Amino acid sequence: MPKQSIGYLGPKGTYTEAAALQYNCEAKLVPYPSISLVASAVDSKDVDIGIVPIENSLQGPVTETLDLLIHDSHLSIVNEIVLPIHHSLMVKPGSHIEDIQLIYSHTQALAQCRHFIEQNMGGVQAVASLSTAAAVEDMLASEVPAGAIATERAAALYGAEIIFSGIQDNMANHTRFVVLATHDHNITGDDKTSICFSFDEDRSGMLYHVLGQFAQRDINLAKVESRPNKESLGRYIFLMDLIGHKKDPIVSEALSAIAKDVSMLKVFGSYPRFHSA
Amino acid sequence: MPKQSIGYLGPKGTYTEAAALQYNCEAKLVPYPSISLVASAVDSKDVDIGIVPIENSLQGPVTETLDLLIHDSHLSIVNEIVLPIHHSLMVKPGSHIEDIQLIYSHTQALAQCRHFIEQNMGGVQAVASLSTAAAVEDMLASEVPAGAIATERAAALYGAEIIFSGIQDNMANHTRFVVLATHDHNITGDDKTSICFSFDEDRSGMLYHVLGQFAQRDINLAKVESRPNKESLGRYIFLMDLIGHKKDPIVSEALSAIAKDVSMLKVFGSYPRFHSA
Repeated sequence: MPKQSIGYLGPKGTYTEAAALQYNCEAKLVPYPSISLVASAVDSKDVDIGIVPIENSLQGPVTETLDLLIHDSHLSIVNEIVLPIHHSLMVKPGSHIEDIQLIYSHTQALAQCRHFIEQNMGGVQAVASLSTAAAVEDMLASEVPAGAIATERAAALYGAEIIFSGIQDNMANHTRFVVLATHDHNITGDDKTSICFSFDEDRSGMLYHVLGQFAQRDINLAKVESRPNKESLGRYIFLMDLIGHKKDPIVSEALSAIAKDVSMLKVFGSYPRFHSA
Repeated sequence: MPKQSIGYLGPKGTYTEAAALQYNCEAKLVPYPSISLVASAVDSKDVDIGIVPIENSLQGPVTETLDLLIHDSHLSIVNEIVLPIHHSLMVKPGSHIEDIQLIYSHTQALAQCRHFIEQNMGGVQAVASLSTAAAVEDMLASEVPAGAIATERAAALYGAEIIFSGIQDNMANHTRFVVLATHDHNITGDDKTSICFSFDEDRSGMLYHVLGQFAQRDINLAKVESRPNKESLGRYIFLMDLIGHKKDPIVSEALSAIAKDVSMLKVFGSYPRFHSA
């Protein structure tokens, strides 16, 4: 059987690569520079599946992934992976925290380490990089003494020296990733279904009515989110994760009932619920 | 009467400064480098009021503002301002679009001009700056030929030359700003109230029940949003804007009823609804 190929949000050393390794450590991993290019690679069968971040427990949704699923893709979610996030502070080998004048990272990682930075590196200028891994390269190329916040693996890959580990402000820091594919996942008996929907009319009772379809059937909601519909301010597309598979009779019945109430309903997929080892 | 002083998310030339000028063009405007520093300045009475972005029609919520309102502030929302967003591409005077090798902007502005960049500047590297105004400074300081995406006012303030205007992909691009103060706003008869709430228990029917309190009383919802509760993945704080003032008898009754169902309810304020001129 040929090796599975996985496209992921790169470069090497990102948290998404760590999620891909956890999902299948024997796969051929192919980095892409953006979430939409990961999806395109799956669509065009350049890779078997794609892995992208969808939600962080502190920062909230990864809006590029939600908008891709809503507007620009017909791929299915076939799995989810939840990874604890441990940020490390790294420098050029031999440098010290007192030397640092610039601190590079992805804006989300900078935000997640705000208290550490304020307490230990007051006055240091933060610089936004395109990913945590790119921040390590930016730091190594910097002419003024700099630090980077990234994964331990990025330090090893790029030859940086870790001077502090676990510097995130909140230890309940997890990121959820989804596995995208051109096929569906079968029922396992312990599944989750991700959907989105919207309304043409802006009536107050509409969302209440939809939630009622689930509440009446004792279907649990694992996530409720909204995104702007991109047409006018104050109009939303709702995203929900519900417990159960779309082929479960009760979920299927609820989805059929909802389809009559909404102007748009898209089922992103049903997939096994993640349980940490 | 002394001039009103307004703290805003700076530097000069940002969209927030434009919102502050629209709100009161005669006020003394004081830029702050972050949303939380604007709030601190209002809290400590260094300025009379503060103006920060809360929501964009394409990108969705400004999560730093939502998290500040939920977790870190007792300020009230006393007004809202909605501003159309027009992005311009600017360069060092005398440069041309063909010369550009790097394009600087805030990540949100880069995302909002993605199609323009792909069609007109294929292969140009995008660089994230801390604000659209900072992007103009970064562009002017760049050693390789660069462009920046920012406001027309930023071009004028920093001496850059605009080569394209209105380059945002979607013309329905508006940002909503809120005015923060230590006082409340009186009833005007055409008001909005912003609240957040959460549940201790993770039961599927809870959100349905809360929405029912509004639906039963014909109270319209202008916004429904969720944010992670920062304690565990999949637990949320819900944010809603509803039509009416918290002192309107029917809104007051609904809020009292909800307070019994939820573990936390915070009213951010009631304020006049914005209507474009």
